[in-house]
Amino acid sequence: MTAPDPSLLSLNTATVRAQWALPEIIAGCVRHGIGRIAPWRDQVAQAGLADTARRIRDAGLALSGYCRGGMFPALDAAGLRAARDDNRRAVDEALTLGAPCLVLVVGGLPKDANDRPASKDLAGARAMVQDGIGELLAYARPAGMPLAIEPLHPMYAADRACVNTLGQANDLCDALGPGLGVIVDIYHVWWDPALQREIARAGRAESAPGASRLMGFHLCDWLVPTQDLLLDRGMMGDGVIDIPLLRSWMEDAGYRGPHEVEIFSAGNWWKRDPDEVLATCKARHAAVC
Amino acid sequence: MTAPDPSLLSLNTATVRAQWALPEIIAGCVRHGIGRIAPWRDQVAQAGLADTARRIRDAGLALSGYCRGGMFPALDAAGLRAARDDNRRAVDEALTLGAPCLVLVVGGLPKDANDRPASKDLAGARAMVQDGIGELLAYARPAGMPLAIEPLHPMYAADRACVNTLGQANDLCDALGPGLGVIVDIYHVWWDPALQREIARAGRAESAPGASRLMGFHLCDWLVPTQDLLLDRGMMGDGVIDIPLLRSWMEDAGYRGPHEVEIFSAGNWWKRDPDEVLATCKARHAAVC
Repeated sequence: MTAPDPSLLSLNTATVRAQWALPEIIAGCVRHGIGRIAPWRDQVAQAGLADTARRIRDAGLALSGYCRGGMFPALDAAGLRAARDDNRRAVDEALTLGAPCLVLVVGGLPKDANDRPASKDLAGARAMVQDGIGELLAYARPAGMPLAIEPLHPMYAADRACVNTLGQANDLCDALGPGLGVIVDIYHVWWDPALQREIARAGRAESAPGASRLMGFHLCDWLVPTQDLLLDRGMMGDGVIDIPLLRSWMEDAGYRGPHEVEIFSAGNWWKRDPDEVLATCKARHAAVC
Repeated sequence: MTAPDPSLLSLNTATVRAQWALPEIIAGCVRHGIGRIAPWRDQVAQAGLADTARRIRDAGLALSGYCRGGMFPALDAAGLRAARDDNRRAVDEALTLGAPCLVLVVGGLPKDANDRPASKDLAGARAMVQDGIGELLAYARPAGMPLAIEPLHPMYAADRACVNTLGQANDLCDALGPGLGVIVDIYHVWWDPALQREIARAGRAESAPGASRLMGFHLCDWLVPTQDLLLDRGMMGDGVIDIPLLRSWMEDAGYRGPHEVEIFSAGNWWKRDPDEVLATCKARHAAVC
C-alpha cells in the first residue's frame, strides 16, 4: 500500500473532547493542517449551532459526518416519539452544518428511566431500529441528508447499538432503499470474517446503482489488553488491526472519502496535550494507515 | 418454555475456581446434587489426573466437557509443534477422564515470548487454526474423542480465539469433517443475528448425517454495564440474555445435552461462599433458564 492521501484525514471531535471545546478543536485543526472534522451534537449544542457552522465555514474545514443520530428503541410510544423528534432535529442540524451524512448509532435494548436495559428482546429492538430508520429516511431523504448506519462492536449490542455487523447494516440498506449508507469503523468490525465481502457489497450498492453506500471510514486501533469496553481505544499503530489491509478493501470497493480518526481514551489520549494528540494523528495516519 | 430438566445442570469448575480446588468442587457438586462437571486442565494437573478421574467416578459425576485444548496459532514451527503436542496431551487427559468432548478455544493472533500479539495477520491466524484442528482431529478421531470448537465473543479475537461466530465454527466443521462439533456459549454468541440459523445448521450436521454438531450449551449472562472484558460475567438472570429463547433454539435443533454454567467473575461470584454460588446456580437454572 502507498501512504494515504493526507488531505483525507478528518478529526472526530471526540478524540480531544476531554481537553478542548469545539471552537478550540476547530482552531486546532486549522493549526495542524487537518482539513476535515466530524463534530458531536453535544459539543455543537454547547458552542451554538449557527456559531459553529460559521466557525467551520470560516476555517475552511469540510465535514466528514455529524455524530450522531440513532438510539431508536424505546419502551413505549412516548419514548419512540421522543427519539423520532430528536433524530429529526439531528437531521436539521446536519443540514445547517453542511455535513455529508448523519451518522446513526442505532441503540440497543430499550432502557428504563434509570438508563438500564428494560427488555431482553433483541430481535424486537432490531425491529424498532429498522422502523425508526425507515421513518427518519422519510424525513431525511427529501431534505437531502444521507443517513449512515455505523455497526458497533458486538460488545455494545445491549446498551449502544444492536446493529453489530456490516452485513446487518447492508441488509437494512437493502430493505430501506436510497439515502441510507454505512460507516466502516475499523474498531467495530475488524474481527468480522465477512468484512471484506460486506465492504465490497456496500461498495456495489446493488439497490442503488451508481450510489455507493460507503459513507465513512473511521480509524483507531484495538489494544491488547483492552482495559475498558468503551474508553480504551488505541491510536492507529498501537494495536492489532491491519489498517492498510482494511483501507485496501475500502478502496477496492470504490471508497475515496475521508479517514476519520475517532479515539475514546480516558486513560491515555484524553489526558495528553491535545496539540500532541493532533500531531500524532497526522503522523500515524501517514505512517501506519 | 417449561423449566429445564435439573439433571442437565453441569458446573464448569471455573465458576468457583477462586475459592475451591478441584477435589472440593467435586465434593461440592455431590453435596448440592449437581450431577455433571466440566473441569479445567490446570485444576486437573494440580489435583492429579488419575486421582481426579477416580474422584469423579467415585462421586458418580458425569462430565459435560473438558476445558480446554486449542491455542493453535504460533509465530514459528517450534511454537506450532508445542501447541500440537500439548493438544494431544489434552486429548489423552480427556480420554482418561471420560469426557464427552475436548473443548477448543482456538487462540488469537500469534504471540511473542511476553505473551503479546506479534502479528496483525488475522486471516493467517485463522488458517493456522484450521490446520491445527485438522491435525488434532487425525489424532483425536481414531482415539474416539470428539473436538468441540467454542466460538468466542469478537472482543477476544486478538488474544483468545479468532473463531468468533457459530457460522465460522460451522464452516470449520464443514471443511474438516466428522469428529468435530461446536459449543454454544451464550455469553459469546447471544448478540449474533445469525444465531438461530447457525444453531439449526449445527443441529442438522449436514456433513455428518445423524451426528449433531451441538456438543455443549454454556450458560451465564451478559451484564450491563460489563466492567471487565474477561472477568465480569453474570449469573443467569442478572443480565440481558433471553436464555429460554436460546435454549428453545438449541432444543429445536435437537440438542438434549447438559447446561453447563461457566462464570468468570472476579468482582462478585469468585468472592462469595462457594456453597452459595452452587445453590444460586441451581436455583437460577430452574427459575430463569
